[in-house]
Amino acid sequence: MKTLKLFLVFAFAIFAANVSAQQKKYVMVIHGGAGTILKKNMTPEKEAEYVKVLTEALKAGYAKIKDGKTSLDAVEATIHVLENDPHFNAGKGAVFTHDGRNEMDAAIMEGETLMAGAVAGVTTVKNPISAARAVMEKSEHVMMVGAGADLFAKDAGLEIVDPKYFWTKERWDGLQQAIKEDSTKAVLDHGSKKSELLGSKNHDYKFGTVGCVALDKAGNLAAGTSTGGMTNKKYGRVGDAPIIGSGTYCNNETAGISCTGWGEFYIRNVVAKTISDLMEYKGLSVDAASKIAIEKVGKMGGDGGLIALDKKGNMSMPFNTEGMYRGAITADGKIEVSIYK
Amino acid sequence: MKTLKLFLVFAFAIFAANVSAQQKKYVMVIHGGAGTILKKNMTPEKEAEYVKVLTEALKAGYAKIKDGKTSLDAVEATIHVLENDPHFNAGKGAVFTHDGRNEMDAAIMEGETLMAGAVAGVTTVKNPISAARAVMEKSEHVMMVGAGADLFAKDAGLEIVDPKYFWTKERWDGLQQAIKEDSTKAVLDHGSKKSELLGSKNHDYKFGTVGCVALDKAGNLAAGTSTGGMTNKKYGRVGDAPIIGSGTYCNNETAGISCTGWGEFYIRNVVAKTISDLMEYKGLSVDAASKIAIEKVGKMGGDGGLIALDKKGNMSMPFNTEGMYRGAITADGKIEVSIYK
Repeated sequence: MKTLKLFLVFAFAIFAANVSAQQKKYVMVIHGGAGTILKKNMTPEKEAEYVKVLTEALKAGYAKIKDGKTSLDAVEATIHVLENDPHFNAGKGAVFTHDGRNEMDAAIMEGETLMAGAVAGVTTVKNPISAARAVMEKSEHVMMVGAGADLFAKDAGLEIVDPKYFWTKERWDGLQQAIKEDSTKAVLDHGSKKSELLGSKNHDYKFGTVGCVALDKAGNLAAGTSTGGMTNKKYGRVGDAPIIGSGTYCNNETAGISCTGWGEFYIRNVVAKTISDLMEYKGLSVDAASKIAIEKVGKMGGDGGLIALDKKGNMSMPFNTEGMYRGAITADGKIEVSIYK
Repeated sequence: MKTLKLFLVFAFAIFAANVSAQQKKYVMVIHGGAGTILKKNMTPEKEAEYVKVLTEALKAGYAKIKDGKTSLDAVEATIHVLENDPHFNAGKGAVFTHDGRNEMDAAIMEGETLMAGAVAGVTTVKNPISAARAVMEKSEHVMMVGAGADLFAKDAGLEIVDPKYFWTKERWDGLQQAIKEDSTKAVLDHGSKKSELLGSKNHDYKFGTVGCVALDKAGNLAAGTSTGGMTNKKYGRVGDAPIIGSGTYCNNETAGISCTGWGEFYIRNVVAKTISDLMEYKGLSVDAASKIAIEKVGKMGGDGGLIALDKKGNMSMPFNTEGMYRGAITADGKIEVSIYK
């Protein structure tokens, strides 16, 4: 009887080990923003469009990884697809500032070396993620902002476009709507309580950021994020996307992370580094750490989501909104794309 | 004999408890930059000037705390003294960009609420730390950059000055020297290895940032940092000072932190949040956590220092350079100011 019990314990251990070994290994995760994305508001055609672009983006990055290229190459190629598509609030399709401009932010980071690059408030470089990569690879700096960052992108040989390139009717209409709704609300409101100052009726204006984390054949992680920021933003506002540690972070010892959501809350919580530190200092899994970080944002009143991928190919995609455009691809090329909860 | 031993153990325990209770409680720590500060290069007059300003800065903040004002008020008052004094690379005395401009960055954060504000690349607001505070308190945003941030500061009623106000002969001469030394070095250097790209012969051009952490009577921490960045900086470069989590962070549960040094390394290591997380997730003291963070910067090739203060009044001021202008004041008003190792 005792022998049988021991045998069963062994058999179960072998079975469990096999299940673990068979667990899916992801090599890339992406997001296209989180927010009030409800199935009832979506047409089947619109839904199909989003699925198509997310799938294309995953394929573009996967091709790099399969080809033995770096995770950085995969992240850049993937985000190019999302930046060049008007469905997302990044590159073509970026939202408008209060002054009717498209001011974009992006960041990229490499998990092996902890090298990082970021740009904020760029207006002429076609692919802000490539500008971030150029800052990382071709300058001694990590972050450049405004006209200086655009000039650097030009000097680095990147494609420069007329700001009109970023104009889309949907985003322009969105700005007009936002201005109308906000017309009674002064940004400077000395009398308001902090909670009111932080609040915004239009919090979906903040969503649509894109991001990607990739794991290459050499076992190196890279993470990138690109965004147009918040519709109707004023005064050169910068969100979390280009802030290393907040919207973007990557470390081979822990995970690559890209966030999307109400940027101010992500900065105040330094979300991406928090996830990495929960893994490094508390020994949490990438999923457990990611969920705790989103809970912190939620408790403070913020919303959004994030994607994270560790060196072993475990991923997490938590969000506390109605939906998040997201996708992942396994080492053997199996694609998963989702929109709703 | 046994009774005697027990008595001695008890006596020692009481003695140890007393020593612990008598440990100094600090209510404010400040820095005025870390770098190659050698006694042999300093005149007694120059040294006395630095000590005088650091002392004045501590007194200005201490007066607020003693008066029952918030730690935020203390941080702002202290940094005003340092910003208004030409000895430091912040406000009046800020270094020049390659184009001969003074582009300043600052951040402030409140430990109780995790509210934060930051500005980067401002050129006309007399006290950038106050602009950061205005972003935190009078807008729904955390970070504003460039002309937008200056406009916001103006709209918020802050003192605006002609950019000429920031001109000082010493910094202007520093720029001319830097341009001369860098004339053979292109910032865009596609052929170089990463280590070369990150390297800089002129790394003392990066120092002189000022910062302050304060603890008020209500037990709340606040931290702030203000800087002119790096002499000869190009392309709208932004360092770690205005990056929440990197150069500045504050959390009542852990500590308030302000960093100074080679900003790029502080961003890549997300230094300030790392210290907070080492305290929160590993249970380390503020001093142990701060030292680990500086070691991480050093191992990567970066240098600088930081100041940190926890809710109990324990402080840490590690640096891996030859010197750091620094000071602290205890709850009963005892001032300590140091420059060298």
